Amino acid sequence: MTGSESGPTEGGSPGISVLDTDDCVALLRSTPVGRIAFVHDDRLTVLPVTFAWSDDAIVFRTLDGEKLQAADQFQDVAFEVDEWDVRSHTGWSVLVRGVAEHIEDWAEIEQLEQTELVPWAREEWRRMWVKVVPGEITGRRIP
Amino acid sequence: MTGSESGPTEGGSPGISVLDTDDCVALLRSTPVGRIAFVHDDRLTVLPVTFAWSDDAIVFRTLDGEKLQAADQFQDVAFEVDEWDVRSHTGWSVLVRGVAEHIEDWAEIEQLEQTELVPWAREEWRRMWVKVVPGEITGRRIP
Repeated sequence: MTGSESGPTEGGSPGISVLDTDDCVALLRSTPVGRIAFVHDDRLTVLPVTFAWSDDAIVFRTLDGEKLQAADQFQDVAFEVDEWDVRSHTGWSVLVRGVAEHIEDWAEIEQLEQTELVPWAREEWRRMWVKVVPGEITGRRIP
Repeated sequence: MTGSESGPTEGGSPGISVLDTDDCVALLRSTPVGRIAFVHDDRLTVLPVTFAWSDDAIVFRTLDGEKLQAADQFQDVAFEVDEWDVRSHTGWSVLVRGVAEHIEDWAEIEQLEQTELVPWAREEWRRMWVKVVPGEITGRRIP
């Protein structure tokens, strides 16, 4: 018994509990795959990426593609992680809103290369590092 | 051995295979939870929902909240599903771009009420039905 709320809570809706920022960051730390959402050429895109939480930011590697273009424009992006269980009908999600940046500082890149973050689609093809600096972090849990 | 591609493919990038529409729809049919992304008040939002694939569209239930506001404006939305395996470094994702609509036709609602789609956050709180009519369906797989 954890005393989780099942009624209305601030910023949530009935049946959904709101997570505080510390809980959200703990979940971001414990999750290997998230989804980055951005608008490019007036089109909404949502793509999964393997990521790490490093120095209070989301970092991931990508190829010179859509995900990097979003970063090069210092664009507003959203980043989502979640987990759910079909049998128990439970789950949680965390949403980070922030700005994507292409990391160009070599000292920072060298430090990141030491992490365990490995892109799944062949490492040599994912040499570019992108950072999402959070402006807002929110999360919800059912129940 | 399934002969999956590991090199560049149309619309993809090295190490990522592109899925055709039939594969994407089969994956949408087999997945209970997806994420709807939309822009509201200039803010990007990504939220998980339990959904069903019905009559060539994504349908889900929601409360009168952000997700419904997006639908009432016949807004462009994106809907994403994915699955991944941390040990084997494999995964896939499907992205649907389309328009969200609030379903108001009672015959259509009655038919949807017969489906097995049950919202996890107490059914009586999720009476509104939203439909996302796909304009474009794309998918990718690693490797």
